[in-house]
Parts: sequence; C-alpha cells; structure tokens
Amino acid sequence: MLAEIKGLNEECGIFGVFGHPDAAQLTYYGLHALQHRGQEGTGIVVSDGKKLTGVKGEGLVTEIFTADAMSKLTGSAAVGHVRYATAGGGGYENVQPLLFHSQTGSLALAHNGNLVNANSLKHQLEAQGSIFQTSSDTEVLAHLIRRSGFHQMKEQVKNALTMLKGAYAYLIMTETELMVALDPHGLRPLSLGCLGDAYVVASETCAFDVVGAEYIRDIMPGELLIINENGLTSERFSLSTTKAICMMEYVYFSRPDSNIQGVNVHTARKNLGKRLAMEAPIDADVVTGVPDSSISAAIGYAEAMGIPYEMGLVKNKYVGRTFIQPSQSLREQGVKMKLSPVRGVVEGKRVIMVDDSIVRGTTSRRIVSMLKDAGATEVHVVISSPPIKNPCFYGIDTSSKEELIASDKSVEEIRQLIGADSLTFLSEDGMVKTLSQLGTNGFCLGCFNGNYPTEIYPDTLQYYYQKG
Amino acid sequence: MLAEIKGLNEECGIFGVFGHPDAAQLTYYGLHALQHRGQEGTGIVVSDGKKLTGVKGEGLVTEIFTADAMSKLTGSAAVGHVRYATAGGGGYENVQPLLFHSQTGSLALAHNGNLVNANSLKHQLEAQGSIFQTSSDTEVLAHLIRRSGFHQMKEQVKNALTMLKGAYAYLIMTETELMVALDPHGLRPLSLGCLGDAYVVASETCAFDVVGAEYIRDIMPGELLIINENGLTSERFSLSTTKAICMMEYVYFSRPDSNIQGVNVHTARKNLGKRLAMEAPIDADVVTGVPDSSISAAIGYAEAMGIPYEMGLVKNKYVGRTFIQPSQSLREQGVKMKLSPVRGVVEGKRVIMVDDSIVRGTTSRRIVSMLKDAGATEVHVVISSPPIKNPCFYGIDTSSKEELIASDKSVEEIRQLIGADSLTFLSEDGMVKTLSQLGTNGFCLGCFNGNYPTEIYPDTLQYYYQKG
Amino acid sequence: MLAEIKGLNEECGIFGVFGHPDAAQLTYYGLHALQHRGQEGTGIVVSDGKKLTGVKGEGLVTEIFTADAMSKLTGSAAVGHVRYATAGGGGYENVQPLLFHSQTGSLALAHNGNLVNANSLKHQLEAQGSIFQTSSDTEVLAHLIRRSGFHQMKEQVKNALTMLKGAYAYLIMTETELMVALDPHGLRPLSLGCLGDAYVVASETCAFDVVGAEYIRDIMPGELLIINENGLTSERFSLSTTKAICMMEYVYFSRPDSNIQGVNVHTARKNLGKRLAMEAPIDADVVTGVPDSSISAAIGYAEAMGIPYEMGLVKNKYVGRTFIQPSQSLREQGVKMKLSPVRGVVEGKRVIMVDDSIVRGTTSRRIVSMLKDAGATEVHVVISSPPIKNPCFYGIDTSSKEELIASDKSVEEIRQLIGADSLTFLSEDGMVKTLSQLGTNGFCLGCFNGNYPTEIYPDTLQYYYQKG
Amino acid sequence: MLAEIKGLNEECGIFGVFGHPDAAQLTYYGLHALQHRGQEGTGIVVSDGKKLTGVKGEGLVTEIFTADAMSKLTGSAAVGHVRYATAGGGGYENVQPLLFHSQTGSLALAHNGNLVNANSLKHQLEAQGSIFQTSSDTEVLAHLIRRSGFHQMKEQVKNALTMLKGAYAYLIMTETELMVALDPHGLRPLSLGCLGDAYVVASETCAFDVVGAEYIRDIMPGELLIINENGLTSERFSLSTTKAICMMEYVYFSRPDSNIQGVNVHTARKNLGKRLAMEAPIDADVVTGVPDSSISAAIGYAEAMGIPYEMGLVKNKYVGRTFIQPSQSLREQGVKMKLSPVRGVVEGKRVIMVDDSIVRGTTSRRIVSMLKDAGATEVHVVISSPPIKNPCFYGIDTSSKEELIASDKSVEEIRQLIGADSLTFLSEDGMVKTLSQLGTNGFCLGCFNGNYPTEIYPDTLQYYYQKG
Repeated sequence: MLAEIKGLNEECGIFGVFGHPDAAQLTYYGLHALQHRGQEGTGIVVSDGKKLTGVKGEGLVTEIFTADAMSKLTGSAAVGHVRYATAGGGGYENVQPLLFHSQTGSLALAHNGNLVNANSLKHQLEAQGSIFQTSSDTEVLAHLIRRSGFHQMKEQVKNALTMLKGAYAYLIMTETELMVALDPHGLRPLSLGCLGDAYVVASETCAFDVVGAEYIRDIMPGELLIINENGLTSERFSLSTTKAICMMEYVYFSRPDSNIQGVNVHTARKNLGKRLAMEAPIDADVVTGVPDSSISAAIGYAEAMGIPYEMGLVKNKYVGRTFIQPSQSLREQGVKMKLSPVRGVVEGKRVIMVDDSIVRGTTSRRIVSMLKDAGATEVHVVISSPPIKNPCFYGIDTSSKEELIASDKSVEEIRQLIGADSLTFLSEDGMVKTLSQLGTNGFCLGCFNGNYPTEIYPDTLQYYYQKG
Repeated sequence: MLAEIKGLNEECGIFGVFGHPDAAQLTYYGLHALQHRGQEGTGIVVSDGKKLTGVKGEGLVTEIFTADAMSKLTGSAAVGHVRYATAGGGGYENVQPLLFHSQTGSLALAHNGNLVNANSLKHQLEAQGSIFQTSSDTEVLAHLIRRSGFHQMKEQVKNALTMLKGAYAYLIMTETELMVALDPHGLRPLSLGCLGDAYVVASETCAFDVVGAEYIRDIMPGELLIINENGLTSERFSLSTTKAICMMEYVYFSRPDSNIQGVNVHTARKNLGKRLAMEAPIDADVVTGVPDSSISAAIGYAEAMGIPYEMGLVKNKYVGRTFIQPSQSLREQGVKMKLSPVRGVVEGKRVIMVDDSIVRGTTSRRIVSMLKDAGATEVHVVISSPPIKNPCFYGIDTSSKEELIASDKSVEEIRQLIGADSLTFLSEDGMVKTLSQLGTNGFCLGCFNGNYPTEIYPDTLQYYYQKG
Repeated sequence: MLAEIKGLNEECGIFGVFGHPDAAQLTYYGLHALQHRGQEGTGIVVSDGKKLTGVKGEGLVTEIFTADAMSKLTGSAAVGHVRYATAGGGGYENVQPLLFHSQTGSLALAHNGNLVNANSLKHQLEAQGSIFQTSSDTEVLAHLIRRSGFHQMKEQVKNALTMLKGAYAYLIMTETELMVALDPHGLRPLSLGCLGDAYVVASETCAFDVVGAEYIRDIMPGELLIINENGLTSERFSLSTTKAICMMEYVYFSRPDSNIQGVNVHTARKNLGKRLAMEAPIDADVVTGVPDSSISAAIGYAEAMGIPYEMGLVKNKYVGRTFIQPSQSLREQGVKMKLSPVRGVVEGKRVIMVDDSIVRGTTSRRIVSMLKDAGATEVHVVISSPPIKNPCFYGIDTSSKEELIASDKSVEEIRQLIGADSLTFLSEDGMVKTLSQLGTNGFCLGCFNGNYPTEIYPDTLQYYYQKG
Repeated sequence: MLAEIKGLNEECGIFGVFGHPDAAQLTYYGLHALQHRGQEGTGIVVSDGKKLTGVKGEGLVTEIFTADAMSKLTGSAAVGHVRYATAGGGGYENVQPLLFHSQTGSLALAHNGNLVNANSLKHQLEAQGSIFQTSSDTEVLAHLIRRSGFHQMKEQVKNALTMLKGAYAYLIMTETELMVALDPHGLRPLSLGCLGDAYVVASETCAFDVVGAEYIRDIMPGELLIINENGLTSERFSLSTTKAICMMEYVYFSRPDSNIQGVNVHTARKNLGKRLAMEAPIDADVVTGVPDSSISAAIGYAEAMGIPYEMGLVKNKYVGRTFIQPSQSLREQGVKMKLSPVRGVVEGKRVIMVDDSIVRGTTSRRIVSMLKDAGATEVHVVISSPPIKNPCFYGIDTSSKEELIASDKSVEEIRQLIGADSLTFLSEDGMVKTLSQLGTNGFCLGCFNGNYPTEIYPDTLQYYYQKG
C-alpha cells in the first residue's frame, strides 16, 4: 500500500528523444505514460539545434501542456520530466527539466533519484560564490559541470558525475547533444529505445510502447551515453560499479506493463503472489487485492491457491489534487475517499487481502476495518514483500525510521495494530529467488535489511530520522 | 468496449439527500462516486428550507466544487447530478440540476435517462408560449409541472409525470421537499438509503458506501417518493408498470461495487464470464480483459477455464478532457492513447481477450491488432453480451442503427473485420439466465432484440436512424 | 461623484450591427467603447442568417472575448451588451444578451434601462405557467412576445412593447432581423449609424467613432426600427410620446466624446461648469475636478472664473474587480483606494473642488478631508447639478430615498456633514437652460424634482424606499 | 507620446517597507500606485525575520496578488516590484523581486534602471562558473555580492555596487535588513518616507500618499541606506557623484501627483506648457492634450495663451494586455484602439495638440490624421520637450537611434511626415530653466543632446543601434 501514503513517493519519471521531428509530441505521450511516477509537476525542454525552449508547470501532463504550449516546442531533441515531490520541496522553480542559459550555451537537466551528498556539495559550491535558484538536488550537477576545469562538455559532465553519491538517472541536453547518465549502482531504472533513426530514453519501457518505439537495452550502472548527430557513443564514467536496482520498482512503483532488466513487472508481481501462496497458504473464501499496484500479486496468489479472485475493493479513479477531504465528523460517519469495499463480494466471506507493502500501518488498518464493516468474517492480510524496517535514501520516500511500523514492531504486534486475523510477509529470500527465477538479480534491499549500496552522510541521516 | 466510444454514453448519475446538516458535502462525495456515469458537467443545488442555491459547471466534480464553491452550499437538503452528454448537447445551460425561480417558489430538477416524447411535448408547450432555456429533455418536466392545473405540488408533479414517455429517474426539490420519481418500467437504476435520520437517494449503491449510508431498497417502477419534514411517503403515479431495467447497467455501465436490484455488479459480470466459458470454451495460454469494465468477466472466464488471467492490456488512468490527440502521422508511427498492450505478457501467447460488448467494431479491431503487434500468436475475442443490433432510446447511446456493426453483419463477418482468430458472443438466453440465477429479472433488452418496453415516436426514430 | 458609489449604477450599454461580414468584431470594439456603462458582465450573440450563436460571461469585454471565443462568432448580424448590475442581480444567467431557442426559431435580447412594471408582468405570466430563467427585467419581453396572439414577428413585438412601462432601449435579433425599440419617453440614449451598407446601433455615439461608423440620427421615443435584408423600416408602436431623456447621461454617465441628441457631452459638462461660475463665483487659488466625470465641468468653471485649473486629485486607473480592499486598521492609517490628493498642488491653497453630484455624501466628505489633510487651507465644493432628492426608477440607481443625503437635509446641513468651507449646487433652471442653449431639451429630472415621466407602481416604490 | 509606443518603456517601479506588521499589504497598495511604471509583471517578497517568502507572476498587481496569495506573505519587512519589459526580456523567471536562497541565508533583489556593463560582468562571472537563472541585469548584483571576498553583508554589497555602471535603484533585503542603493548619478528617482516607526522606500512619492506615509527625503546619488532593527544608517559607496536625474521622469513617465526632488510633476509639466506658450505662441480655437501624460502641459499652454482647453482626444481606459487587435481590413475601415478624437469638440476648429514627446513619429501622424478626419481645420503640434535624437541607455527605451525620427530629420521634415500645420518643440534651454525655476537641477539630457553621464560600453552601443 506504499503508493497510498501522501508524501511517500519521491520518485520521478524522465523521457528523452534525439533526432525526431516531433520530439516534443513524443515526449508528451511518453511523459503521459510515466505520469504514475509523479503528478505534482511536469516540463519539457526542446532543442532545435540552436536554442533550448521550455515549458513547465505544477500539475498533470494534460494540464500543463495545452495545444498552445505545445506549439512553442519545436525541435528534434527533447527532454521531459514528471515529478512527485523531491527532496527539494514544491514550487514552480523546482519543476524540471531545469533550464540554464549562459552566454556560451544552454543546458537542460532532468533527474530521477536522490543524491545523498547534495547538501555537502551545495555547501562547498556556495562557499565559492555559487547561487542556487532551486532547492532541488538536481541543480548541483549544473554547477559542478560549469565549474569543472575541463573544456569539452563530455569531460565536464564525466568529471561532475564522479562527485555525486546516491541514486540518479540524468538526462542532460545542450543545443546539439543529449547525454544520459546512470549512477554506478543503477539504483533507478532507465532504458534506451529507438524509433526509426531517432533514439529515445525513458524511466520505464511502457513509455516506449505508447510512442511506438522499440526497446534496445537498459542503461548500465556508471554509463554515460552521448547522442548527437554522429550517433550514439557509450562511455563509462565510473569503473567500480555494482548493480543494485531498487526492488520497490518491481514491488509497487513501476507500471505493470513495463519491463525492468528484461522482466515484466506484472509477471514479477504475479509470481511474488504465487511465491507467497507457497510460503503462506491460507484457507479462505475469496482473495482480493488493494488496487492498483497489488492486483497482480493477488491474482497470482488466488491462482496458486485455487481460491476465487474477487474485486473486494474498488478505487475511485477520479481522485485528484483538488479533491476536498471530508471533515473529521463526516469521516466518522463513514465518508470514504479513494477506496471502497464491495459489500456484495465480501459479506459473509473469509477474505484474503493482498497488499504490496506496509509502511506506517494506518492504511492497512483502515482497509481491514472497512472490509469487516462490509461483512467480511475474517480478513487475512498477506504482503508481497518483506517488512520495511529502514528508510530509503534514494528516492522512494518510505518516511523516517520512526514512522515505519516494522522498524520496531514484530509481525504479531503489527497484526494486532491493523486488526487482521492473520498477517504474513513474503520472505526476503523468497522475493529475491522469485525475481532471480525470472532472470534478474542485483537489487537494493536497503529498506528491508539496512544494507545500502552507497555510504550515507550524517546530514542525510539526520533528515530521515527526524522528519514526520 | 461500449464505454470507449466517444459520445456513446448519454447516461447520467443523480444523488439526493434530505435531512442532514452536511447535505452538500454528502452530495459531493456521492457524486464523486458516480463520476463514471458522466464527466462532462456537474452541479449541486441545496435547500436551507427557505431558498435554493446552486453551483454547477462543465468539468469533473473535483474541478467544479472548489472549497469556495462548497462554502456557498449550506442547507440540509440537496440534489446533485453528473452528466456525460445528454440528448440536449453541451453547454453550461444544460448542466444539471436545472434550477427554476418564480415569485411563488423555486424548483430544482435532476434527471437520469432519456424521454422519447420530449420533442412532441416541447412543440406543444412552445405553441402555448413556453420558453425553453435549455435543449435538455429535463426542462420539459418543469413546464408540465408549472402548467398543470393542480394546486398542490404533489398533484402537479404526478400529473406531469403521466405525460412523459421513456426512461427517467428524477429528483425534484423545492424549498421544503425532495421528490423522487422512476419511470413505469424502471429503466434506470435508483436506490434509497438512510444515514441516521436522513434519507439519501442515488443512481447506484456505490454512492451509499462512500458516504456511510445504509441501503434500504430500490425505487419501484412508477413510484413517486415524497420526503419532507414529516418523513417519507410513497405513492404510485402509474398503475401499469412492468420492470424492464437496462441490461447494460450490469454489462458495462455501473460500477462493480454497486448492487442493482440486490445483485452485485462485479459478481454479475464474473458470472457472465463463467457462463461464456460454458458456452464457448477456447483453448489458449492466457485470458485478458479490456480495462476497466471487462476485467470481472475476464476473471470469471479464466477461473472457469483454468487458464491464467493476465494483465495483457493496461489503461492510462490520466486521460482527461484536455488530452491532446496524436496527429495522424504520429498515430501511424504507433503513438497510442489510453490502452497499451503488455508485450511481456502476450508475446508468443495464444490470447483470449474478453470485452463487454462490440458497438462499431473499430475499437475491437484496434485492440486485436495491438495485441498481435505485441507478439500474440492468436487472439480470440469473447464478448460477455449478445450482439448489439439496435439503437437505445433510453439513455445508453449505442449510436444510430447504421453505425452498429452487428445491425447488418454476421458474427463471421465481424470476426473478419476485427481481425480476430475467433469471435464469440454470449447468448441472450445465457445472459438472462445468469442474472436470473443471481436472483433478478425483468430487463430491457431492446438493443439486443429490438423489443422496446415503451412506444417509440417517429421523430425520435428519425434522430436515431440518421445520426452518425 | 455618482459613479463612485458601489451598486449605484444600474445602467448598461448595447450595440448592434446588421449587414457586415465582421459583425462580431465590430460589436467587440463597440462594446469596448461602451465599457464605462457596465463592467460586471458582457455578451455577444451573432446571426449567420440561419442560427444564433452566443458567448457571454461575467467580466470585462477584454476578459470574456478571447480570440478563441471570437472565432466562434461568425455571421453578419450581431447584438452585444455590457452590464453593471441590473435590477436582476448578478450571476451568469443574467448576463445579456439573453438567447432563447425554440423549435420555430431563436431570439436574442439586449436591454438598457429599467422597467417599472416588471414584477406585475412576471406575476401574471407565471400564473399562466411561464418559467423565468433569469431574474432580469429583460426576459419579460421575450415571454410577452411568445405569448402574443399575433403571427408576424413585428406585430408580436409591437404588441409586447405596449405592455411595458419604464425605461428601455431594446435590441431584438432573430435569425434574419434586427429590431430596435426605444420607450415612449426616450429615457435612455440610443443612436443609429451606418458603416458602408451596414447599419449599427449603439447606446452612445462614441462606439460609432471607434468602429469608423457614421452617425445618422438618434432613435425616437416610441420608435421600432426593423432592419433586415430589405433595408431599414421605421414604425411607431406608441403614439403618445414625450421626450424625457435622462439628464444624468449628460451630467456624469456618458463618455465625454459622445453626442446625445446632437450635443457633445464634454461640451455640455464644460458649459454646466461655466454656468456654475456665473451662479456661484468663488474666490480661490485653484480649481480641481473629481476624476474622471467632473474634469470637464471643472475646466469650464476655471476658465469662466480665470482661476488656474490644477490636477488636485489623481485616480488610479488600475482599480478593478479583483482589488483587495484595505482592512479597517490600514484605512485608518491612511491607506487609500482609487483617489489620491496631490499635495504639491493643493498645499497651502484655497481649493475649489468641482464634482458632478452628491448622492450619500460619504465620498464627498472623504475627498474634502483628503484635500485638507494634503494641506488645502479652504475647500469649496461646487456641484454641476442640483441636489438629488429622489430615487431613479429608470436605471440610474441613486439608491433608496433614505440614503440620499439631499432627500431630507438642507444645503447647509450637507455642507457641515461633508466638512466643506462652502457648498453650492447648480440650479435646476440653470442646468436646463445650459442644455437648451446647446440645442436640446426634453429631460427626465425625476431625481431632482420628483416629476417622473411614467407612472410608478407600488411594488417598485416599496423596493426603492426600503433598500440600502 | 512616449508611453504609447510598445516596448518603449524599460522602466520599473520598486517599493519597500521595514518595521510594519502589515508590510506586504502596504507594499501591495504601494505597487498599485506605481503600476503605471510597469504592467508586465509584479512580485512581493516578505521577511518575518527568519525567512524570506515571495509571490510573483506575469500580470497586474490586482491579478497576481489574490487574497490567497497575500495570506502567505506575513512579516514586517517587504520589497516589491512592478515591471514593464527590462533588458532581460519576458518570462516568469525575470519577474522581480529575484529571490535567492542559500544555506547561509536568503537575499531578495528589486531593481529599477538599466546597467550598461551587465554583459561584460556576466561574461566574467560565467567564465568563473556562475550560473544565471534569469536574463535580467539584476541578477548580476547577486552574484557580485556572493563572490565578494568580504565577510560582512554591508561590505559585500558596497564592494559589489562599485562594479556596476549605469542607472540603478536597488532594494536588497535579507532576513534582517533592508538595504537601499542609488547609482552615483541618481539617474532614477527613489524616495524615503516613514509611517509611524516604519520606514518606506518608493520609486515615486505617490506611493507614500496611498499608504499614508510621510515623505522624508530623496535618496542621494551613491548612497547606501541600511535599515534594520537598530534603525537607519546612511553610507556612501561612491565618493565621486554627480546628480543627473532622468528628465523624462518629469516629462512623461512619473505620475502627476508625485514629487521628484521636491518638485511636483504635474506642476512641472504645466510650467513646461506655459514656457512653450512663451516660446511658441500659436493662434487657434482650442488646445487639447494627448492623454494621459500631456494633459498638464496642455492645460498650462491653454492657460498661458488664453485659449480654451478642450477634451479633443479621449483614451479608452480598459485597454489591457488581452485586448484583441483589429485586423488590417478593420483598421482600414476606421476601427480604432485606445484613442478617439472628439468630433463635437474639434469639428471646424483650429486645434493645438500638445504632446510630451515624439519618438518615431508614427503615433503623432496617426493622431493628427484622426483629428483632421474628425473635422479639425488646422492641427498645430506643440511638444513639451526638445527632439529626442539619441537612445537612452538607462532604462527609458526610446528605441534604437535609427528609429528615432529626430535623429536624422529636421523639424520641418518631421512636420511634413506627421502632416501637421505647424510643429514646435520646447527648447532644451527652456526646459532646463523651467525646472530650475521650480527649484531643481542636475539632469540627464542624454536623449536630447547625447551627453551621457556614464561611459557607454561597445556591446551596449551595438544593441541600441541595431535593434528595431
């Protein structure tokens, strides 16, 4: 139920095109397919070979890019971004791509991920006289590039990247080039595709499908791709790389029709559900999933157990930023937002409720109680991932350690708190094996087991342990 | 795939409350739950016992009702409406509830359905000097009420209702009363519930769930409910009634968590899918449904056949009114809207694609082709309802007769046109039996078999046979 | 200072064109020139010979008519309206032109003025079953036309007009005709012009100047003009007519560049100022006018007296509907809206402050005090019209009788209340003679002397004597 | 007619408060009074002693600062800005005050004027790695402050200011201080006032009047004021100062109710008009001024000549940014924007038309022709300033040298081009003497005589001689 918690998600989505006459339009459709990765703000910067032009704003892709706005975006290369709420906080300034003009040229930056040494770097840069216009991590890279002693753009970028620690997938566009960089652990997904002679890059492959592009391969950890009129070249800016892709992308964040490292996300989730059935077979009348991200796992669990899968919970798809929250008194009278139980399905039934994760436990408690109010005689909660015991420093904002219910409570304690008749988590081992059988491995499991692939800095730690 | 066709749906949703201090707020949440029944416009009128106050506009519930707008709506009775595109066409004037002020009192009207003699009635009323401000059917009732010779409001309304032919669920509110009327065939769903001492009325029971109301019963064909400070009284304005509820409400239009005539919609659909498996068992690797309305039937089919259900198609939930359509050239390059196939799920597989209906066939053809492009080796289309051969005159706009692919083509001809490896429709008999086993009957099957429960007027006929 | 008082002005402006390919565009510029007559709402309805299409909204001409909106308005005849706040109150519905569609044809209505028997007529019409959609007077005419027993449109209109009492300048447009009607006393200004072969009609001639049209003549009291493809015909619908044009149009309401009955408004005002100098010569150092409507009179006074005219008061021209009013505490600290005194001009000077009228006296008191705070040693107030002792029933809302400071106070009492060193009003006789010397006569002086040209109905009287 | 030419005006207005609980509200009213100095964008930044918060946007003060926006601006110090179109071009980023956050503190900057060495400074700063977020001159100061080697803010600012060349009035606000700086020639007006214990600063004194503040004195050339909780201290950052205030502020740019260097602007203009009568007495029937800025001079000329002043031209005050320009064909038919001639005043008359200046001559030609079309028998143009022969580098954008009609044409040639019967300019000597008699001197007359108070850099020169 990770996605349901406000402020939980610091993820973003990025999309880039080089060499197509409709670069901005393709980016529009690509970003639209990535909208689930961020709904707070969005922007597109386009290059016509001579100058960079951008449009951005706070809102959805369909809100910000009017026909009028799109008509300004002509050129054959483009980068775009959808944003939830990054470390930098809200505000127009922080909406990406960031666009920097100087007398010698322009630069657009789009970033997915979270740096762990951003504050240290900012401190040093400001001491030398740099002025930051945004509170986002992303701007740090621009300053490092401009201050690098190197003359060639490629060298400036490589040099700058070596100073960053943490998770990052970057699109860097000048008037004539599109550069694509992934951190040395490949913490965030990033794929390369083509569309005729044009190249496209996206956080998820579902964006390739909507624009009719063909998938080529995933970007490698520590790789810098340079795409210009001479074609594509690949360089390594870091030689010490270890793949550690975020497991949560499979568990709940990516779209089910995307493939990550060649593995389809829906299939991964369904198999996690099947594995759960193997590890924790429960006798019940119906299986239901918490929409939308847990449906695949629920179907897998039901199929493996031979118990009917039913639509026991329905999500209102029209909930948006402008929804008026019910007052406390209305909430007590039973006014619900977003999720409704389906009485006709659960009444008088023993229900297995599959969810992808438990963060603070409040949502799970609410859903269990909702199902019981609707007449479920038993509610068994099964979670298609292990307990989240530690914060994420790389962009998946699982809240501070104190807020994580599993950080200091046993499974039995959590079960009591959420009011379930039973509670089962998938084992870490079972999760990794399931993915491994599908053909992929090399994960960041930091939020489950505390083993982070990068060093973590004191100021970052403080931030994550205090907030909330 | 009925819901996918632009302009297809002339349905609406209505919601009313009497006797609750937060009447407008409850209506807001109720309409929000009914948003799938109409996204073009919405309005709420509230009564504080002395005057009626309204807010309405073109857009979604969350767009029209800002905190500011809601603060104007104080009172203990309210009626609300969500609208797609009724017979009257677009425009602010046609957004409901309609609100009429006169020197002797005010009147608010909210209508779900479609009259078949609206034009004849308008013609007569205009000849007598009436001026219509809207092009919607709904206004006819207001004029009939005002011109009725009776003195008492209740008698005026009953007299006026007897002149209407067609499908209608009406909410009629004055300063002191809420009246609820359903046509003599009960063509559209309409349910009564309570919330403490307050009464609520809604097109679908899902709206009761979100506001914490308790379901009492469905409104009966030809019934007029009068709710005022003395409580609720029920009268019959028509003695010759025959229940003929629209089958399409079960098949695709209502929300899966609603109950109609006591039958859960998800369950009905799942059982239609199971029945389909019985009537047309097909050997394949995966079953997939066209989101959102066909998922339940697909799961039922898969479960009955023992074939895995997979997410072979994904719908983009952020598609809104302001979405920019791709140009022809981009569409030819493969840019997609709304639906994407999941290559990782269908590649190399024999796919059974379950849909709720086929109207013009264009959408089915597009989806079949999409699945084959994504690598499906076979695509078998199974439809959880019979062929639609005739137009609907009661609010479900299945286009004119000429546009209906099944009006003059055989199943084999349709199969060839949509490019499927096989095509199967559920039998009419199987459909009715399935519902009957769940405990309900008395349906309008006009669009399938041409047997309409009411007479149809020449001018209406002409309209439906010409348009498109 | 009549225009300064909120809600004071119930006047409107109307503009019509027949026979020009750019009818809507011309109406746009015409309405823009008439914007001073109403800033609350505006609309344009256009006819292409077959149907009427309208755009309207609450706001200024430049706000409501976007390029997008204008592109919908194609046709060779158009009527437009700017509205302040008529008897009907605010709201989108009441913005004019009103547009009525029926199965036999459409009708657009634009009205400047105020009926005195609107309530009586509404009462009768509603008793016969008519439903009013607006609370504006204007709709009454539409119902009277539709209910008239006559067959020909012209006869329907003439018959309907005979039932109206009060002030009205009407534009009535069907698919093929533009009709123009003025009440039997000609209370409101209305002029006819031409632009090549096209006819134009406007509340003020300043609108002719901005569209390059040539003035032909003023519409006569009790006249009905019918303009269609056969040209222009003039009829009388009332034989008992007496010209009684509103004197306030000259005194403060019309634009200085307009001519009414052949007399330029700036010239009229300047001559009223000169007459005032003759009637009340005062010794002082500078003359200043209250902007904008009193500048001409002040210049006339200064010129006749040989005292320098100075800009002693400046008006902020950016004050709009969205201006945030200062809080009480800020107002006490001296925060001002709209008007500022010019210290550099009035400090240490004896100031003659010319204004066009005194309604409640509050604005005059504020300005006098402002001038003294800015260092004026004496402030002599001279008013270029007589005391307003009675309400207006014809569209110039001079508030209820109780609010009019001159209704029960002597000039000396008013002087004390506003804190002036002396106070002089122009005599009624002097005012009429000044206009007469410029070549016009036949005025409504009801607000000065209580002699109203029409009968006044009890319900209207009650309204005007109660409100405020 | 300087203000009438699009893009002509690069001026801005600034306003600051320190030590008042309603700092943002006062700034709102102050900026509103300065709105004539810039209508393209506006912003306010407020300090609550701990952090800076800002709101800004493209539009008028009344459009950008909604009640909602104002509620975010709490604190006791504030700086605000209204902007026309500075050297930097349009766009949200360029709207001021600019607000810079760093880990050690925040900084807000508001600037009126134009630097002549901005490009050189930017070039140097970018070479050292600085990134500019805006294309406005103003940001240069922020970078110079941050890169200064000094530790104390005051020293940083003084050091940075010494590097700037050109015209500037700066407001610089940190969490705890408001600094106010004026360039060593005092090219732009800037005044200090107080409101109880609070200090206020504004581009023009008219802003003091609307907030009830008392004028103290004008800021001196080369002065840096520092206002904080210890009160106000004044320092000099430049010892070599020569007062050279822009003459155009008197001639047309400032509001008539403002005082500059103790001289009222209306009075200055009126006296320029009187001087013109002395230098160029012309026999005619009426005198008229081009609204709004030439009215005072016209009244002065009329008064000195004993010829009646009349309102021969009227300006539409509702012209805004969203006004739809008439098409070429409509313009040819006589559709006018902004200015209308008053036929009733000029017909058959010999007209003296007073204007403040002639830039390109196109507007003058249009007005002369308009007056003749309206029946003027003769049109004599008298200009209350000398011919503008040179561009302005300090913020008054009088276009490039090539566009200035007086740069290479004689008075007689200009007269013929604009179609006037005679044309007279005020002499430079007469202009300076008039102001001198009112008690002020020390002007920049660069645009008249080419004597600029600062050096001008090659890149700036090129810009001004090329554009257009």
